[in-house]
Formats: sequence, structure tokens, C-alpha cells
Amino acid sequence: MTKPLRLGIAGLGTVGTGVVKIVRRHADLLTARTGRKIEITAVSARDRAKDRGVSLRGYGWEDDPVALATRDDVDIFVELMGGPDGPAKAATEAAIAAGKDVVTANKAMLAMHGQALAELAENAGQSIRYEAAVAGGIPVIKALTEGLAGNEITRVMGVMNGTCNYILTRMESSGLPYDDVFREADALGYLEADPNLDVGGIDAGHKLALLSSIAFGTRPDFAGIEIEGIQRVTIDDIRQAADMGYRIKLLGVAQRTARGLEQRMQPCLVPADSPLGQLEGGTNMVVIEGDSIEQVVLRGPGAGEGPTASAVMGDVCDLARGLRLPVFGQPADSLDAAPSAIAGLPAPYYLRMALQDKPGALAKIAAILGDAGVSIDRMRQYGHSESAAPVLIVTHKTTRAALDKALEAMQSTDVMASTPVALRIETV
Amino acid sequence: MTKPLRLGIAGLGTVGTGVVKIVRRHADLLTARTGRKIEITAVSARDRAKDRGVSLRGYGWEDDPVALATRDDVDIFVELMGGPDGPAKAATEAAIAAGKDVVTANKAMLAMHGQALAELAENAGQSIRYEAAVAGGIPVIKALTEGLAGNEITRVMGVMNGTCNYILTRMESSGLPYDDVFREADALGYLEADPNLDVGGIDAGHKLALLSSIAFGTRPDFAGIEIEGIQRVTIDDIRQAADMGYRIKLLGVAQRTARGLEQRMQPCLVPADSPLGQLEGGTNMVVIEGDSIEQVVLRGPGAGEGPTASAVMGDVCDLARGLRLPVFGQPADSLDAAPSAIAGLPAPYYLRMALQDKPGALAKIAAILGDAGVSIDRMRQYGHSESAAPVLIVTHKTTRAALDKALEAMQSTDVMASTPVALRIETV
Repeated sequence: MTKPLRLGIAGLGTVGTGVVKIVRRHADLLTARTGRKIEITAVSARDRAKDRGVSLRGYGWEDDPVALATRDDVDIFVELMGGPDGPAKAATEAAIAAGKDVVTANKAMLAMHGQALAELAENAGQSIRYEAAVAGGIPVIKALTEGLAGNEITRVMGVMNGTCNYILTRMESSGLPYDDVFREADALGYLEADPNLDVGGIDAGHKLALLSSIAFGTRPDFAGIEIEGIQRVTIDDIRQAADMGYRIKLLGVAQRTARGLEQRMQPCLVPADSPLGQLEGGTNMVVIEGDSIEQVVLRGPGAGEGPTASAVMGDVCDLARGLRLPVFGQPADSLDAAPSAIAGLPAPYYLRMALQDKPGALAKIAAILGDAGVSIDRMRQYGHSESAAPVLIVTHKTTRAALDKALEAMQSTDVMASTPVALRIETV
Repeated sequence: MTKPLRLGIAGLGTVGTGVVKIVRRHADLLTARTGRKIEITAVSARDRAKDRGVSLRGYGWEDDPVALATRDDVDIFVELMGGPDGPAKAATEAAIAAGKDVVTANKAMLAMHGQALAELAENAGQSIRYEAAVAGGIPVIKALTEGLAGNEITRVMGVMNGTCNYILTRMESSGLPYDDVFREADALGYLEADPNLDVGGIDAGHKLALLSSIAFGTRPDFAGIEIEGIQRVTIDDIRQAADMGYRIKLLGVAQRTARGLEQRMQPCLVPADSPLGQLEGGTNMVVIEGDSIEQVVLRGPGAGEGPTASAVMGDVCDLARGLRLPVFGQPADSLDAAPSAIAGLPAPYYLRMALQDKPGALAKIAAILGDAGVSIDRMRQYGHSESAAPVLIVTHKTTRAALDKALEAMQSTDVMASTPVALRIETV
């Protein structure tokens, strides 16, 4: 048997603890599958005294993750601290410089610094693996990088933030407004310390940046993603969408078009009877479309101790078996810096607005849409308050540019009682 | 750059033609992703003159697949002929003996001879890969062998024969009886030359044998699978199931229990609103459950030129990248010969029978179930012909053994007007 593979784990929160548990519980199984013993040599975390419900006896302890990453008795540095910069990045760089492979769950770090880190690792002949960074336990990085390597990928889509999906499905089932359900999610501990990472679409955006890099052979480009959170989705939108056979999801979509790489993370309407539409609660889903595969849908838990640790261990097992790949599927120095194209592909849109109760208000809006070349599929006025009339419009396929022009023109009229909400209807 | 990887393709039907197309269309993409040129050196098929819609110019031709498999200028023997024995097996063995890796879509060969072939390959230091053998384009072998390697797998389930799923969903949507829809599927070319491979559950059983071997570290054991086809499912069953919130699927289930390995391929009732229940037409789905991952669901096209060729090329790319694994995830000589346990785990069952129109008939049946220890959850008599009364029973959880005892006892009464149908209700 080959010599043991020795892990140094930095960060002993939920995921780190889960990894320790798997290594202890499945020592024999892991050896049977990989042909090697997998051991933990040392760990690092903020608080040495904290009871994590798992024994750390026999493991070395380092207060400094950089010291852990460079220990002679560590083969793989397992980075589970998080954060785009700071200790996570410093320790990752140190590990690579010291000739270690890195397994991480850090989507923010890779979305922001993935290109530089990948070049660093590949020049040093080391691997960085990050299955746990995207869609929790779903082995989607592997499916895209390896299983579907024979395809030209045409589109990648995903619901990849369980908290947002929980909030949106809970709003629908309870009829409660966004603010109430947000507070509920907070009380349940579902939100990040900075909730905007979740509800602002940033966390899901980090994940999309990694998926599109692999899918399209482009440099990870988080800044190129058009991001919109779920904060403006109202219970009214959810009801109106349901009424027309749609559900609202925070959906990430990446597509390569003639004009460049289109990456969007925004609330979208999807058919209620599609796999994406049927997704409830904290579950994640990634849809991959390619020229040969047509469509593959992967669904599973997007977070949590077991599922995320499972993804980390999948990477560890790959390295134990000697499977080594470029970080983003092809060498980092061959990745393309594709220009980002903002929503160039036309789509139908859902528009909701409140109009002043004035004669001719609706006609004005309709005329503005017509002037911008946006044609109307359905339009209805529903309910009515004293001073404002809520109006719902579904357009035919239009570009976002044409729509934005129309929305801007509407804002400069005297008939708008609120800022209009525009949600893309994604064909899935 | 490393030297080119040279393929010899045996079998130029739908899948083989699809592989040729991908290699020709995506030469650059494949090289970017794997770091090597991927070339076809030679091919073999029955009919050299046939127009396959793709040029074979520049490829060598071998009438004999064994000759192809042993050519000096072939690195990977791509076996796409099919059939458990005969030329496919002979050529696969010859390829291994000649130091080639093998990529195959041949579920029958591996389900029947997988253990021997894996030992042969592993002793010779060669790989056999077969992503295309299970669930078409879905990268499920990879997910199970690699992505979820950190899990003790607790259950694997799958709808893996698109033809059966087409027939069952079409019966429900059209209201047509089995025989009519069977003829329709035949006319559409959906059926194998021997339709029993499809509707008898054998093809799907081959796939299940491979999945359970990887999942549980056991030798592939096709003979140990309890197989039942869909031929006896009636439109009545489908309607009654729908009425109770279920759909009927030809579902494969593998579970390791205290008594051994339980493998079933049979029509089951699953909740209509579950991912399995919502699966329509020819699409395949595999559900994998593990101690850390909880549940992952993979969905995609189960057959067809593009999807199956995509799976073949995933394997080819892995080999081009130097990824090498034991055939069933751990060395073949370490696989366990688990005893097969026939449906030991209790489940609720759906029973349909026609009773003679005699006083006390229903009471007799109820008493027999009670005597066998099978308790009744729901029972109803629906409709009524002149001489027979159709009766539907849903039991509480019971073992198949207890149920079989009851069914046998029923048969020896004088009140049965037909052989009862018993379908398991699977918790998903």
C-alpha cells in the first residue's frame, strides 16, 4: 500500500467538523476505495477549547493557518475558513508554495482570486479542488469538468443559495411578506453574518462565476455577473407568477453568446412544473446543457455539515487516487478573458408597477413599451387601492436594453406610483 | 504536449457514430481540456458500405473487432457493439491482454462478466470504463465512484429504462392499455430487438447490478436481482395509483441490509410529487443516498446518440487526463460476495385483485391477510362487472415474505377471479 495521505484542516466550523467525523468514521472504507490511509495530522481554528462534539486527540494544533499549511507532515491543506482574502488566501498561497495540494470550500476566494491562485498552483504542479464551494454536496464541479468534458456547454443554470430558495418558497406557502420570512430565516440561523451575501445574490454569484469558468473555458469573472438580490420580490409577485404557472427563483444563468459571456444571478420566473420550478426549500439544483448531452439536472442539499463534508472528501479521495486536473478544467493560462455581455439574449419579461389613478395612464405605459419595440403578451390591472392601480404586464421576447429604455421612459412620466419591477422569464 | 491518444471504435451504430462526430467536431476543445490530441485510428463494424452520415476517411477498417482491439496504433478500445458475450467480450479480453484500456457502453457484458473482466483488467494494469452503460448521458458512475466516495452509500434507486418509462407515462396520459402503447413504442423504434430486455426489466437490471457493485463494494450480481417487468401493469393500476397520489415506475432499488444485498427492479408506486414521480417519458433518473450526502438526484437523457456518446467521451477524456480507477471503485479482488437478500425490508404494498361475486369473499381475503400478519391500511371495491368485483388494498408496512404467504393462501380459496397484482410502494 502507498503511504498515508495526510490532511491539515484549517477551520473547524460545521464543515470542518464534518470532515473530521468522516475521516474518523470511514477510515477503512476510504482506504478500500482509494488504496491509501487518509489521516488528519493537524488542525487549526480560532478557539482551541471549544467543544465540537468530535475528538481532536492525536491531531497537532496550529493557531496560525499558514503554519498549518506549510507543515512537513501535511500533504493536503484543507481550507475551510472562508472569506475572499485574509488568512484563507494567505494560507492557500503558502500551502501551494510549500508543495501541498489544496481542497477548499471557499467560493468567495476562488471567485475573486481564482485565476491567480490557479496559475500559482499549476505553475507549482499542485492542485486546488473545490467541489464543496458550489451547490454543497452535489458533485457538480466533477460532472461539468470531467463527466461532460466531451460537450460544448451551451448553458449552465442553477439555484445555488438555499436560504434564498427557502425564503421564496416559504413566502409562497405561508403568504407572509418578504420581511417576515427574512426575520424567520434569520431566527433559524439560515443567514450569513452579512445577510446580503445570501439575499443579495452574492454567494450564489460566486458559485456561478466558478461554474461558468469551467463550462466556457473563461477566466472566473465575478465582476462580470449581473447580480440582483431577492429583496424586491413581493408576495404579490409570487402570487401573480403562480397564477400564470410560474415560480420565482433566484436563478443563476451563464451562456456564451456571440457578444461574449453572459452571466446573470437574479430572481427569474421559471415554469412551475419544471425541475427548477418544483425545487423547494434549501435544496440546490444545477442544470447543465451541452451540444451532445442535451440537459442534465443535478439536485441535492446545498449546505449542511454532512453534504458539504461529503464534497470535501470527494476531492480528498480524488487526490488520494492520484486524479489531478487543472483548477478550472483546462490550464489557467489558456483560459479566455471573454468580454462580459449584459443580458444580450432576448427573453420575455414580467413587469409589475403601480400607476397613478389618472385617465390614460395605462395607455401611456403601453405606448412607451411600443415605442421601445417591446411588445405586450398579456396585461392586466388587478385589485385597486385608493390612489394607485397595480398593473401586471408580460412582454414577448425582448432585449434587456430595450426594456430598460422603456422603464426609464416610464419613470419620467407623471403616471408611475412606484418603481416598476422587471423579472426575466427564463426558458428552462 | 503529450502524444495523441488513439481510439479504435468497434460498433458504428447510433452511439459509435455519435462518438465519431464528437471527436471530429471538438478536436480543439478536447485537446484544450485534456492536454492531448484525441484521434480515431481505426474502426470496425458489420457493414463497411453503410452511409452513417459521417465521414470515416482516414480511419483504418477492421472486419474483426479482435483485430481492431489489438492494433498497435490503438490506445483505447471503444466497445460499442453490445451483447453480453460473443465478439464484444472476446474483443474486450483481447484488448486488455494487448495492454489497451477499454471504454464500453455494454451493460449486459459487465453485469454478467464484470467481476472476471475487472480482475483481468486490474491484473494487467488496464482500465475498463463504462459511464455510457448506465443511465445514458448522466454522469452517474462518476458521481457514485468518485464524487460521493466519502459516503457510506445507504440506497441507490433509479428509473433507468426510458422505454418502460415512456410506456408507463404514455399509458397514464393517453388512457390506452399496455398492449396498445407497447405497439406504439415498437412502431417508434423505442424497443430493443428482444423487447423483453426493455419491458421485462432486464436492461435496467443490468444497470442496477453495476450501480450496486460500486455503491456497496460488492461483486456485480445480476442473478441476485429480483426482476419483474411492466407487462402486468394495467391502466387500472395506473389510475388507481394516481387517485391515491402515486405514479407507477419501473424502479430499481439497491440497499445493503443486515441480511445481505437487496436488489430489486420492479414496478413500484412512488409519490406523484417526488422527483421520481414527476419523471416523464424517456428521461432517466438516479437517486443516491449516503450517510453524509443525504440524497442526490441526477436526471438526464437515458439514451440517444448525443447523450450516450457524451458519456463515452467523458470516459475517454478521463483516460486522456490520466485518471485511472479500479473498475468498480475499489480493487475487484477486494469486492465482497454479499449474499442476496430478497426484499427483506418491509414496505407498504398496493394489491389489486378481482374477486368472485360471492357472499363473504372480501371477508375471506381480509382474514387471510390478517392471518399472515399483513395489516390493511385502505381497502376498496371499485366498479363491478357481472361476475367479478375488482378490489384494491393498500397494506401497512409488511415484508414481502408475509405478503407472498397471504397471496398464496388467497389463490387456494374459491373466491379469486384473477391472480392478484402486488406492487411495492417505495418511500423516496
